[in-house]
Order: sequence, then structure tokens, then C-alpha cells
Amino acid sequence: MNQQLEGNAETKRRVCVVLVDRANYGRLKPVLRAVTERPQLQLQLIAAGTMVLERFGHPVQNVKNDGFVVDGEIYIELEGSTPATMAKSLGFAVVEFASEFQRLKPDIVVLIGDRYEALAAALAAAYMNICIAHIQGGEVSGSIDESARHAISKFAHYHFPSTARSASYLERMGEAPKSILGVGCPSSDIARVLESTITSDVINNLGSGPKIDISQPFLLVVFHPTTTSYGGERQQVEGILEALAKLQMQTIMLWPNIDAGADHISKAIRMFRDRLAPTWLRTLTNLSPEHYLELLARVSCAVGNSSSFVRDAGYFGTPVVLVGDRQEGRETDEHVTHVAPIASQISRGLRKQLKHGRYESSTLYGDGLVAERIADGLVSLKPYIQKRLHYIYEEDNRHEYARAWDHHRTRRVEGHLAEEHRAAAR
Amino acid sequence: MNQQLEGNAETKRRVCVVLVDRANYGRLKPVLRAVTERPQLQLQLIAAGTMVLERFGHPVQNVKNDGFVVDGEIYIELEGSTPATMAKSLGFAVVEFASEFQRLKPDIVVLIGDRYEALAAALAAAYMNICIAHIQGGEVSGSIDESARHAISKFAHYHFPSTARSASYLERMGEAPKSILGVGCPSSDIARVLESTITSDVINNLGSGPKIDISQPFLLVVFHPTTTSYGGERQQVEGILEALAKLQMQTIMLWPNIDAGADHISKAIRMFRDRLAPTWLRTLTNLSPEHYLELLARVSCAVGNSSSFVRDAGYFGTPVVLVGDRQEGRETDEHVTHVAPIASQISRGLRKQLKHGRYESSTLYGDGLVAERIADGLVSLKPYIQKRLHYIYEEDNRHEYARAWDHHRTRRVEGHLAEEHRAAAR
Amino acid sequence: MNQQLEGNAETKRRVCVVLVDRANYGRLKPVLRAVTERPQLQLQLIAAGTMVLERFGHPVQNVKNDGFVVDGEIYIELEGSTPATMAKSLGFAVVEFASEFQRLKPDIVVLIGDRYEALAAALAAAYMNICIAHIQGGEVSGSIDESARHAISKFAHYHFPSTARSASYLERMGEAPKSILGVGCPSSDIARVLESTITSDVINNLGSGPKIDISQPFLLVVFHPTTTSYGGERQQVEGILEALAKLQMQTIMLWPNIDAGADHISKAIRMFRDRLAPTWLRTLTNLSPEHYLELLARVSCAVGNSSSFVRDAGYFGTPVVLVGDRQEGRETDEHVTHVAPIASQISRGLRKQLKHGRYESSTLYGDGLVAERIADGLVSLKPYIQKRLHYIYEEDNRHEYARAWDHHRTRRVEGHLAEEHRAAAR
Amino acid sequence: MNQQLEGNAETKRRVCVVLVDRANYGRLKPVLRAVTERPQLQLQLIAAGTMVLERFGHPVQNVKNDGFVVDGEIYIELEGSTPATMAKSLGFAVVEFASEFQRLKPDIVVLIGDRYEALAAALAAAYMNICIAHIQGGEVSGSIDESARHAISKFAHYHFPSTARSASYLERMGEAPKSILGVGCPSSDIARVLESTITSDVINNLGSGPKIDISQPFLLVVFHPTTTSYGGERQQVEGILEALAKLQMQTIMLWPNIDAGADHISKAIRMFRDRLAPTWLRTLTNLSPEHYLELLARVSCAVGNSSSFVRDAGYFGTPVVLVGDRQEGRETDEHVTHVAPIASQISRGLRKQLKHGRYESSTLYGDGLVAERIADGLVSLKPYIQKRLHYIYEEDNRHEYARAWDHHRTRRVEGHLAEEHRAAAR
Repeated sequence: MNQQLEGNAETKRRVCVVLVDRANYGRLKPVLRAVTERPQLQLQLIAAGTMVLERFGHPVQNVKNDGFVVDGEIYIELEGSTPATMAKSLGFAVVEFASEFQRLKPDIVVLIGDRYEALAAALAAAYMNICIAHIQGGEVSGSIDESARHAISKFAHYHFPSTARSASYLERMGEAPKSILGVGCPSSDIARVLESTITSDVINNLGSGPKIDISQPFLLVVFHPTTTSYGGERQQVEGILEALAKLQMQTIMLWPNIDAGADHISKAIRMFRDRLAPTWLRTLTNLSPEHYLELLARVSCAVGNSSSFVRDAGYFGTPVVLVGDRQEGRETDEHVTHVAPIASQISRGLRKQLKHGRYESSTLYGDGLVAERIADGLVSLKPYIQKRLHYIYEEDNRHEYARAWDHHRTRRVEGHLAEEHRAAAR
Repeated sequence: MNQQLEGNAETKRRVCVVLVDRANYGRLKPVLRAVTERPQLQLQLIAAGTMVLERFGHPVQNVKNDGFVVDGEIYIELEGSTPATMAKSLGFAVVEFASEFQRLKPDIVVLIGDRYEALAAALAAAYMNICIAHIQGGEVSGSIDESARHAISKFAHYHFPSTARSASYLERMGEAPKSILGVGCPSSDIARVLESTITSDVINNLGSGPKIDISQPFLLVVFHPTTTSYGGERQQVEGILEALAKLQMQTIMLWPNIDAGADHISKAIRMFRDRLAPTWLRTLTNLSPEHYLELLARVSCAVGNSSSFVRDAGYFGTPVVLVGDRQEGRETDEHVTHVAPIASQISRGLRKQLKHGRYESSTLYGDGLVAERIADGLVSLKPYIQKRLHYIYEEDNRHEYARAWDHHRTRRVEGHLAEEHRAAAR
Repeated sequence: MNQQLEGNAETKRRVCVVLVDRANYGRLKPVLRAVTERPQLQLQLIAAGTMVLERFGHPVQNVKNDGFVVDGEIYIELEGSTPATMAKSLGFAVVEFASEFQRLKPDIVVLIGDRYEALAAALAAAYMNICIAHIQGGEVSGSIDESARHAISKFAHYHFPSTARSASYLERMGEAPKSILGVGCPSSDIARVLESTITSDVINNLGSGPKIDISQPFLLVVFHPTTTSYGGERQQVEGILEALAKLQMQTIMLWPNIDAGADHISKAIRMFRDRLAPTWLRTLTNLSPEHYLELLARVSCAVGNSSSFVRDAGYFGTPVVLVGDRQEGRETDEHVTHVAPIASQISRGLRKQLKHGRYESSTLYGDGLVAERIADGLVSLKPYIQKRLHYIYEEDNRHEYARAWDHHRTRRVEGHLAEEHRAAAR
Repeated sequence: MNQQLEGNAETKRRVCVVLVDRANYGRLKPVLRAVTERPQLQLQLIAAGTMVLERFGHPVQNVKNDGFVVDGEIYIELEGSTPATMAKSLGFAVVEFASEFQRLKPDIVVLIGDRYEALAAALAAAYMNICIAHIQGGEVSGSIDESARHAISKFAHYHFPSTARSASYLERMGEAPKSILGVGCPSSDIARVLESTITSDVINNLGSGPKIDISQPFLLVVFHPTTTSYGGERQQVEGILEALAKLQMQTIMLWPNIDAGADHISKAIRMFRDRLAPTWLRTLTNLSPEHYLELLARVSCAVGNSSSFVRDAGYFGTPVVLVGDRQEGRETDEHVTHVAPIASQISRGLRKQLKHGRYESSTLYGDGLVAERIADGLVSLKPYIQKRLHYIYEEDNRHEYARAWDHHRTRRVEGHLAEEHRAAAR
């Protein structure tokens, strides 16, 4: 049990942070530290999703190694990696989060991002009348994550968006302005103080494939499936591999996450490796948040569709070839080149970025001082349950709605029914 | 198996309508008819939630009696009626809807309203890349339904809102204007053509308690729990019963739905009845949609917090005493008097409404010609999967976001860190 | 959290007792007391199934009122009361028990009886390598409980059967003789020391219907569905009600449990009551274990198919009309008359038993000193995991098996293949 | 949908065969053929568990390639490979099988073996009142499979045991003699008619690692976790790898199944391979049933704990080094050498078996003509639901039970309570 439970636990605000994958932990680590340092807060930690899976490197162990107490570990991933299993994992996750929340009785649940595991936690908390704070709301992207993110916002009672645009979008979506507590992604905090301690040995003691010399130029590839185009992911990753094979530059590739289609990507990588035994490709399962960011800070070019290529790579000025539409619509800075998931386009993008070299640092996604602000917000916010679309608290303009109604109806109704409808309308 | 599967089933668009309670069916019946009449559409029907439960009058039987083929009946309600069981039922429902969708392979899933069962169907469909059309989005109310409704909108690809304000709100929330297909609630269609065939016998052959003479003045009471104030529902329903007991007017009361807290309401009613054996109170479990609306059209005053008291009662001009905050924020017409769930206030509201008598008919929630428009929409809409917050397709105004950022940060950061933050910001 | 967790909790053996319905608690209460009195044991209590449901009188409250700490309350009943929902509730229960066991980390799980909730707990514990002790194994009955009971035995590591025949049957089934720890049902312990404190008021303040005067002769009816004849239960309970209506003797009837078919039984009772308003029939939801047994000790005749009519009624010498085949095969003493679920037979049985009056007390199911023996057993048993069918530790008689093989094959194989098979056999 | 549904499907007996892993299909393929050839039977096929997982080679594709129609594919494996996830997968599987059975409405469900997925199917079918036929009941082994197997027998209405001893054990366990329909494992049918068509290319086009020349001596290794000794599996597989490394003979190793502990085994293999890059070790995920058996027929020695090493290897006379206690208690012929999971013992076993060479063919587990007998049994058996422990239909010997009771009680009760108990007993 969490040591913080002792002492004057009764009076502390119980803040339950949910971690559902390696990337979550990478971003939230500064927040966890900041929460534990606040005497008014008691940290509760739930590790779920791929955090607890050996197949994904058992990242929960990193959390424990860093000295955090993990209050609940839950297993929610149904094997299969199809859209149907993804839906069922979501359903199962709601059940399991409900059990944990019933046990831990948090005052606030803190979620980050847009994964279905986070959505499941939001649903469980909301239906159990627990106040929710959400980090990274209001962003725009592709895949089903786009809808999941906004749905989480609709259940969240407080928001910590990462960019000014996101904050603005949340307000436009009807979230109460007072519920939006500051701006910035906490991963910028790690980036800000990052010391480069990583060595080639760290990389070469993990994963499989030929050794990598990180003192020489190398590439980093992370490519996840895009659920909304399930079935196309194999061809897409083969496009990346073809472009890489042409370049023959030493490359570190991380295995994909667990979304629908991931098994197809993994299979394509394994087949490529078994067929061609590439001397330049090393595959890894899991890295600590710091080591991942150190790699990202140092790599010649990052290739793929991880959202960290948009956020964190910008802070480092690392060139990125962003492949496909998984991040479509997300705010990016100039370090990013968008390409379609086709070998020729990826090659062209790679050549362009390698020629350009590093970019200036961008603080679009945070100034490196975010976690303290979030922790302060968690201390000062007032938990409440009943949300309402904020529009109703603004000036009433019923007259205008009536015109809009006419507009809508007119636009849609054609032919012989239209007149009748118009007559029937008030 | 659905008879419509025969013929040129291959080329028809499979429209899967999800019914999760008696009220859903009451509203969607005209839509079901209109869909079966379109040669381009093949109707698939799933009955879930309380639709299939004997304890709730087994309303799926009404659907079959009306000649519809039910393709799937699923059981998703975990007993307990607590916030935690409600969350778990939601999770379980996602699993079960995923199984049904995998089997029925619909092209479009049609959902109505804001219940967790409908949200579960939306989640399953969305993660399985199935296009979703949602009826009654954009409204505002109390309880967790408020968040569930907007979350469903965030997963829905097309919208059939009931009012002009709702349509406008959906646009403001970032839904694409082209995805909003007309305005109006289909329950107005039933109301428009309703013939009054109901007799006292219909009522007195159902439920339990003393007989009701519907040719004389009577009241209709429907009171559901408000999840977000779980624990208070018992006192609230006792307030209603106390007000009714003072009035001693003959009353038909429907048992509550299955949301968290419902068991407390049922218990309070049963205890009241056992203790006082009121000669004026008859309790019912289930009515056909038409009979329910006929009662609502005829009743002297409706008391409680059903959303049909806002929508359908308005069309009939039936006076309503709206109790508590479950419908808070929803557009209402002048037939509604809001009161707090306290006996004295309810009594005052009842006296006022009984004195006033009937109101003029309102078409705020539809003109009675809605179902045809929805069916036309289902024929003409183009299924798609990848949604995106519509804001990004509008003019970019990054400069303004930057100012907003400053604003947010300034508002939240105080003390010695503020200067540093400002310096660090771009 | 359980107070017993304090002190030298580390060294105590954690005994997790699972209660899944009112009857479970009725039987296990003396065991719970005996366990708490053993310094070597730490009691953990899980209340599941109908124990936590308001609709069933929330019996977990009785447990708490008696001073026990309940460590986990889990909701596992999917509404519907059909064979499919019963199967799914079982599945869901396995998931939920696994969560609880992971949290409570018991050394031994103690189960009683043959309900699917107990089976679910057995499955979760067994697959999680937790030692299981089972009470009431080796009995024979009807319904699916028959198979569930023996399946639990096959997962249980230790057995506390209720009768000598049950103990013998467990050995014959291949359970290790040393794993069978004594004989007797702990409900006899309550029966042995029962003081009759119940008054008519206790009954008349619960449930609904006309008042009962327990100083005058009355009947007690408990009739549960028999899953294996799902669909027939309505006609059966109507048979009972018809026989009772003929007799017009004051009657206390308990609502059925939650098994598939229960909703049909409840509906039949409600319809009977609404139609005939019987002046002799009172229905109850929940009684404390002691009050239930006091009624059973005092009633003129018990009618129905509860297993307590076989066990506990025998101890009291209460006449029983055992209806249908739910208890078929179970050891009964002479106080029981078996009848088919037909009104005429039930009437005949009732007349016979009312004429006979009380029987001599039977200790077939226990001598009233059982709980202490069970608690001693829980202290002294040695937890282990790997079971094996005990037969293999007996003398090998392979030769005989070979003959049996011939026998089997010959019996089944006919026609032209038979000779070939015989030739092919060793 | 299954083509067999057409024609006079109404009158056919629907036989639903459940396949939960590659090995299931390997054994049941002759039965599937025999069922499709019977005009009285209509085959329904459900593929579940690892059958549908890409990570396990997607074996359901083999089934389809062989011309069978698969009526349902269900995903039931929760990732994690811990005892708790195994329990939860079991629970989830019950839910999913119930959905499929509700849809397919089989007259008989046919199950094989002792995996938790098969147990889940048995539970769903039994609680849904569907008749169950079970293949391979009555055997004895280690791990939790031992209990699962006997629990399935307790739910099964008909039995097709593989050996004479198993048939005898089923009778002793209380199964009705008439419900035991013949003897023999259908995998012997494949073995009987096996033609060796496998080439080195088949092997070398699958999996990863150095090429194998199957015209030269080679080893086959299959090592699954033993759930009941969860946590020890890593050390055990390292023992095997150490023994193999000493021998340096070319070796084909199959990845383990999905039971709790499997991830530890996989990790140990991957680490061994990454660390030592053995030139003699090829790892495979999936083989067709025939190719697997051809390998088994041809291999110099099989090493590990697969039950096929006991059954099928015996038919071929292939030497086996059986490692650990997963098969403890199972009938084996002389081709098997049992060793502890320690490198030195495994080495010794390997040397002994390689020196001995092939054994005579054994028909202990079947004569190669089993599938026809099973199909005949499925035609002629009479479905029923209500089982009862068969002992009660034998002569009653209550007197003896009473003595047994004394015996049990005396054995357990010591000290000051013993006298009192003895006095209290009848």
C-alpha cells in the first residue's frame, strides 16, 4: 500500500494518476514528482494497459525503480489487435477501472491523452461521480484517438491543455473557461533539464538486431497503427522499411503500441528482418522516459507517426518525417515534414530533413515548467461533479436559433415535402 | 433472422437501430417505420438494456408485436443500481455491442439520446470503424447524461438534433455543419397523428394499486434518479409523495429507469404504499409508446423529471411540474414549471399548474414530420470514419492563441514562479 | 479495512470466506465466529451475489450488524434471469473474484454449497493458485447445482462435507481421503442453540400482504427455479399457489433466488396476488439467519424446494412437502415428502404432513457442533496447490483397464467396422 | 455462414465443435471430417483462444484452408500471462461462449482436453442447458489442467475418453457407464494414415533462426508453463536450453501456449537467442497438424512437456524426454523418460533416449480408428440435461456411511472436544 496513506492521510486530497503506456509515464513523471512534493496531495498511481505487460517491456517496473509506489496494476488488453478486440478491451477496462476506483476512492482522477485506456478510466470515474482532470485535451489528430480525446474532455471537469490553440478549442467546445487551468505539456519539463547520459551500450543491451553506435548519425522510427484505416497498416510500414532499406543508415525502431493493427505492423517488421537480415536495423521494446527523450534529442531524423515527434522533437529541434495521417490536424512546428506512407515520399522527406539538419527549439508544446503549474492546479481546484455545456451560461439568443433551424431544415428537405415542412414549422 | 435480409440485401445499406429502453422505442418507432419503407435501406434492430428485462415489462415484446424483427437482444445491466455497477454495466455493454456489431456488420448505427447504454453502443461502433448517426445531440441537461450526450456527439459522424439550439450547439462544439442533418425529435411524429384510444381498462389491467378513472382528472408521475446526486434520490421522491398525499388526486406513477439510485426510489415508493395504502396511487411498469403519449396528452398535470415532460408534453400543451435538476439547462417551453425536490415547492407548482390548465401546443422539439427527414438522411448520407474537430478547417488565427496562452498562464501562475514562466514563454 | 489486519497480521493465516446469498450466511455464521476466535486465523469476508442487492433485502447489512467486517462487496448478477445471463454472470463473477483475491491475497478461500457464484470463486482461486476449502461437497441434487457442486469439489483442496454419504462420495470421486476434514453442516450449530425470539411483528414489519399470526398454525413456502428445466417454473409455482389457495391457511412466502427462471416465478406470484388479493399470503424478501431458522422450527409445514428444507428442517423435525426435482437425489430424512409440482399432488402432500405433525429431530446433516471442527481444520490444514485424482496413488491395475477398453469399444462399435477395430486394438 | 445450414438443416443435429488451440485442431480434424460426412449431423465450428491470434500463427486459417467453415471466432485472452489474467480470461471466455451458443443454438457442444478455454465453453453450455460431449476426460496430469479436466467431466453429459484407464476413472468418478462412449484419442487417426511429405523447406520458411536439415537427426522441443508452479518456469526452460546448448544438435523449438507464465518462457528463449545466437536453434510459431505430427514421427527425440509427447509420440515410437511435472500422473508408454527440469537430468535423459533410438508403436492412446466411432456416437447419443452422480443409482449402504462418518470425525477431532462430539453423534 502507498506509504503516503500514513500520516494525516485523512485530510489530504487523493489524486489518482492513471498511466496506460510508456509514453504516459514519460510525460507525467515530472507531474508525479510535483504531486508527491505537495503536502496537500496524496498520490495514488494506477498502472494499466501495456504498462504491466512483459511483451511491452513491463514499463511499470521503471515507475517502481524511480521510487513511486504503484497502488493498482490492472490488465485490460484483450489479445487480437482487431477493431473488435480494441472495443472489447475498452469495455473491459471500464469494469476494471471501476473496481480500482471503488477501492482507492480518489478525490480527483488525473488522465493524459487520448488512448482508449484513458477514455475507459474517464468513463469509470465519471459514472462513479469522481472529479476528472485531463491533460492534453483540445488537440486535433487522426485515428479514433481524435474522438476519444474530445469525449474525455466532455467527461473531464478540469483541463490542462498543452497548447494555446488547444485551450482555445476547449473553450469553443463548451468547456467552462474557469475549468481550463494553464497551458503546456509536462514532457517539456523533462526535456528542459535533460542531461545526455545515454550510451550505445544502453541501446545494445536491449532489444535485438545489430549494434548501434549512437555517436554516429542514426535514425529513430516509431510507427503505430491508425485505427480508422485498419487493414492498411502493413503496406504503410513496408513503405517505411523500403525507404529505410534504400538509405542503409543505422536505425533504431520501436515496436508499435497495442492498437488494432499493431500485430500486422509487428509481423511486417519481423518478416522484413527474417527475409533480409538488415545490418542497420535494431528493434527495441521499451526505454525509460529519459533515455527515449535523449535518443530523440540526439537522433539525426525521427520517422513515423508518434505524437512525441510533434511535441518533444520540436523542443529539441529534431527533424521529423511525419508519415501518414495519424497526426493530421495536430499543431506542428517547422521541424516536421508531412509525407504520405509511400516509400518514395518517405525517402524524399528523409533526404530533405537529413540535408537540413537540426531546427531551432520550439516551445509550442510547453516551456519546461509545466508540472509545477499542474500540481498547483490540483491543489487549488475545487472538485465538482455536475458539468454543463458552458454555452447556456452565455447570453440567450433564441431568436437566432430559430433562424438556424429554418436554415437547417431548408438545406436538407427537398422535393414535395419541403412546403409541408415549412408550413408545419413555427 | 431479419426478413429484410432476403432479396437484394447485398446492395442495401444496413441501418442498425439501437433501442435501450421503452422511451427510445417511443421516439424511434416512426423512424423504424420510415426506414423499412425505404427500398435503399435494410433495418437491423438491437434491443438492449431494460428493453429485454421482465422487471421493466419486457418492452421488446411491444416492438415485436408491432411487427418489427429484432436481430439482437442483449443483456447488459449489472444488478445493484450503484454508481459503480452503472460504470461496470457500461463497460459490459461495450463488450456485448461489439459482439453484435461484429455479427450484424451494419453500415450505419443509429442511436438516440444520452443513456450509458447508447454511449456504450457508440463506443463499440466507433472503435470498430462503423459510421454513427445520433438523434438528440446538442441538448443540455443535468446528471451524467449531460456528459454522455456530448461524448456520443464526439463519436457520431452524423447528427439529427431535436431543436435549433441543439443544432447550433453541435456546430459550436466543432461538429462539421454538413454532418448536421435537419432538426426535430421524431416523437413529435407520433404526437402529431395520435388518436386517443386509451381507456381506463388499459391502465387498470396493468400494474398494481387502486383503479384509475382516466375520464376524471388525474396526475402522471415519472421520477428517475439523477446519477450525479446519487444518495439524495430517496428524500426527493419522498418529497413528491408527500405533495401528492396532500393533494389526494388520482395518480399514475411509473417505476423509475435502471440508473444508479433507482433501487432507492423504488424502495421509497414501495414503503410509502405499504405504510399508507394510498387509495389514489396506481403504479405501472410499462406502457406502449402510444398509450404513454395518450396519457401524457390527457393528464391534468405531469410531475417528475422525465425528458418526455419537456419534449412531448410541450407538443400536447400539458402542464408540467419539473422536479429537481435532472433536466436543468434543457430548453423548455412555457408549459413547464421548475421546482426544487421539496414537498412544499412541488405542492405550490402543482396548484399553479392545475389552476392554469392546458397550454398552447409547442413545436420546439419537432413539427411531427421528423421521421421521414431522418430516413431520407440515412439514405443520402455518405458513411465516413475519420472525424476531426471542424475548427481546424476554419481560418487559422495562431496569433490569437498565443495571446490566449499568455492569458491562461498569467491567470494561474502566481508568486515567485510567474516571472520565470513569462520569460520562458515564447 | 478489516481490523484483524492489525497486530501480528503477517503471521496469521488469511482465511477468506465467500458469502453469495442469505442462505450462505445462515450456514456460515457459526464458522465466521469460530474463525475470529482462533488467534492463528485472520478472517477476510467477501459478500457477493444477492448479498449486496437491495432487491434481495441487502443481506450484507445483517452481516455488518452482527459485527463482522466485510472486506469486499462485489456485484456480479447480470439482470435477465435467463440461462444465458446466468452463464454470463458466472463469467463476470470469475473476473470480479479474481480482482478481489488479487487484492486480499488469502491463504485459503472457504466456499460453501453449489451456486454459480461459489463456483466462480472456486475457479478464480484455483487459477490463481490459492488453496480452497469447500463445505457441503459430495451431496446429490437436481438442477445445474449438481454439476457445479462436483466441479467445485474438483477444484477444492480440502472438503468439509455435511453427511457421511457425502464424505464417502467425495472419496469415491477421487478426492484424497486426507483432504476430507470431518462431517456435518454448520447450520446445525445455529439450530442447536436457537432460542425462539421471533414474534409476529418481526414478520409483519417486513414484506407485503396481510398480517400473519405466528402463534397460530402457518405455512412457509420457498420455491426456487430449477435451471435445468428452465421455462417450466411458472407452471410449477402456479401449482403450488393453487394448492395453497385451496387450503387458505396463513402462509409466509419468500421470493425466489436469482437463478434463471426466477423472474418468471416472481411474476407468477405478483399476478396471483394482484388477481386474487389472497388474505392468507404474505411475501418476504429477507430475514436474518436466526429468524429464518426460528420460522422453520415453528412452521406447521414447509413447502417448496429449498435445500434448507432437507437439512435444517430435519434437525427441527419440521414436516416438509418437497416439490419437484431440484433436491432429487439429496439425502433426506423421514420428515420429507416428495411430490411432483402439480397442485393435486402438493395438496395431498400438505394434507398428509399437516395430519402427521412434527417429526423426531434428525442429525443427518450435523450434530450442532460443526463450526468448531471446521475452524480447527482451517488452522491445522496444510495449504497445497497441485491436486491429482487420488486413484493413481492406489494399486495399478492396467490389465483390468485393458479389459474395460475392450468392453467399451465392443459395446459401441457395430457393423462392418467392429472386426477391424478389434483387430487393431492391442 | 455455414453452408450446411441450407438444405434440411431443420432436422439435423447441430454439433458445435470448439477449437481453442492448434493442438485441439490437430486432434479433432478427423472428427470434423467424420461429422461432416454424417447426413444426420450439421457441423458448427467455433475457433477461440490462440486459434485466432496472429501472435500464435493464426491457426484458424489452417482450418479454413482445409475447407471447413468457421461459424464463430472469439477473442478471449487477456494479455498478461499471470494467474490472475488467466482467471479473468476464463471468466471473459464464459461470457463470449454464451453469446456464441445463444446465436448458434447447438444441440451438442463437443469439447476436447483440459484447457481453461474448453472449461469456459463447458460452463457456458451447461448453464445454458446444452448437452456436452467431452473428449479426453478421465486422464491424470499436473498443473491446473488436472482440475479443469475433471470439472469439465462433471459438466459433460457424454464422454469419449482416450484410454481404458481414463474410461474406468470416469466411471469411478460417478459418471454414468452408459454416458462413456468408446475409447481412443482421435489424433491416432491422423497418425495412422500419415504420409511424410514434410521437407526442410517447410520448416525453414517459417519462424526464425538458422536453417534445419530434417534429413539429419534433430530434436523437437515444446515446453509450456505449469500454472500451479507459476514463477518457476523461467528457471526450468533455462535448464532445457542449457542441456541443449551442451548437445549442440539441431533443434526445432515451438513457442509456448498462452498459459500463465508463458511470457516468462518466451522471454527466456529470446534472451538466450539474443545472447548466444545459437547456430542450432530454430523457433517456430505454428505448424499444420499434419506437419507437426510428421515432425514428431521423424524427430530423434522430443523434449519438453507437451501432452502430444505422451499420446502421439507413443504411436510413432518416438523417444521422449518428459520434463517436469506438467504430465505427472498421465499414462505413458515406454517411449517416455521422466526427468526433473534441471539441466543435468535433461542431458542424461537425452543421452539415454538418443542412444536407445525409436521404440515400438503403442496404441495406448488410440488405434487410429477413433473419429468414426466418435461421429457415430454423436449421431446415436440422446441429448439430456440433468446429470446426477451415478452412485445414487447403486445399492444404498447407509450403514456403511455412518461408520465412515465416525471414522472421519474421530480422525480430525482431538483433545477435549472429542468426547463431546462422540456423544453428540448419532
